[in-house]
Amino acid sequence: MHDITKRLKELGLVLPEVPTPVANYIPAIIVGNELRTSGQIPMVNGELAYVGSVPSARSIDEATNAAQICGLNCIAVADATLEGGVEAIERVLSVRVFIASDVGFTGHSTIANGVSDLMVDVFGDAGKHTRVAMGSIGLPLGATVEVEAVFQITL
Amino acid sequence: MHDITKRLKELGLVLPEVPTPVANYIPAIIVGNELRTSGQIPMVNGELAYVGSVPSARSIDEATNAAQICGLNCIAVADATLEGGVEAIERVLSVRVFIASDVGFTGHSTIANGVSDLMVDVFGDAGKHTRVAMGSIGLPLGATVEVEAVFQITL
Amino acid sequence: MHDITKRLKELGLVLPEVPTPVANYIPAIIVGNELRTSGQIPMVNGELAYVGSVPSARSIDEATNAAQICGLNCIAVADATLEGGVEAIERVLSVRVFIASDVGFTGHSTIANGVSDLMVDVFGDAGKHTRVAMGSIGLPLGATVEVEAVFQITL
Repeated sequence: MHDITKRLKELGLVLPEVPTPVANYIPAIIVGNELRTSGQIPMVNGELAYVGSVPSARSIDEATNAAQICGLNCIAVADATLEGGVEAIERVLSVRVFIASDVGFTGHSTIANGVSDLMVDVFGDAGKHTRVAMGSIGLPLGATVEVEAVFQITL
Repeated sequence: MHDITKRLKELGLVLPEVPTPVANYIPAIIVGNELRTSGQIPMVNGELAYVGSVPSARSIDEATNAAQICGLNCIAVADATLEGGVEAIERVLSVRVFIASDVGFTGHSTIANGVSDLMVDVFGDAGKHTRVAMGSIGLPLGATVEVEAVFQITL
Repeated sequence: MHDITKRLKELGLVLPEVPTPVANYIPAIIVGNELRTSGQIPMVNGELAYVGSVPSARSIDEATNAAQICGLNCIAVADATLEGGVEAIERVLSVRVFIASDVGFTGHSTIANGVSDLMVDVFGDAGKHTRVAMGSIGLPLGATVEVEAVFQITL
């Protein structure tokens, strides 16, 4: 019981507070046995932790950390949306990782591992997901990374 | 009955004609109780209303209007695909908003509100959706915005 | 029986070997009666066949060919994941085609036809899908094209 909560604690990970979008959309939606998130940027306690493109403004290490924070935010919005909280997540189905990057950059996969490793660290084999990683000329608010996730949930 | 049609009229919105793709794909597909659209660009009566990136070629206001038109096209392809037309739309599940933008631009959320506000104006609470907004170095035919949408439908 | 396998042979198409991702994600996932792939780049026998952006480093023809290879890889990962192999594919639901391109390029649709035409050549009417095509400032490993696909499958 409460495996995921325990696992997050073991890993020293704290789910960030979920900011309410100040617009006509919602952080996550439940469709059948799937929870699909909006695109999450690396917000920590209401502040954007990483802005700027890779590698001109941000290193690969920084962007990888930003990607992990985006992933944590995806888990956090699932936790806040589901009646059973994070324990109602059965499986991670997919992540899409958009990385603000410069012309000529090719290391998107390394940065996307920031999300993928998080999901497997937290959910074990149930954390193995499909992935799309790609470069973007620029993301909302200048964020370094944006991630959307789809989780399979207990009904 | 016919709430959506009435609401569109009240808002002074007219669904554009749906252009048939001149290629081996279709404007929308029904999967279970979901209708998923192809990426819609700001076509109005067969002409692309907005081309060029933000802010070098297009202002935020113009792009926001382009985003609204893309959203209307998403509703229009649903209307044309569903037997029950637009009235068979139960809920807006998600939109992805791709914005042709220059390096350094950070106002993607404002532009994406052109779609999000439309959906809530037309569908009320059932219009609240998840959203991904991101910048693109360039979109098909030079379009300023491209939007894909997923709707929950009556079976 | 074995219609798809026969059709691939008739078309002279060979499914590439599926590379195992060297990271914490998987090439494809089954969700209900859908198989959803990870983003596929134009790998052929473990080598990336096309790198660089259109049109500065790659022509439209080369990129269109790259898109076809990405599509073949989507079919190949479905074949490798499904117990019934490629014959268990009932319908192509959607493709998203991300194209590494330069500022000012507008020919994304032509390149995306490399995937769309492949799907209809192989699956006939069941190959008609929804599509999103867009430009990217850069893709993983410098790939010219990346494609994700969703297939409806026999349960």
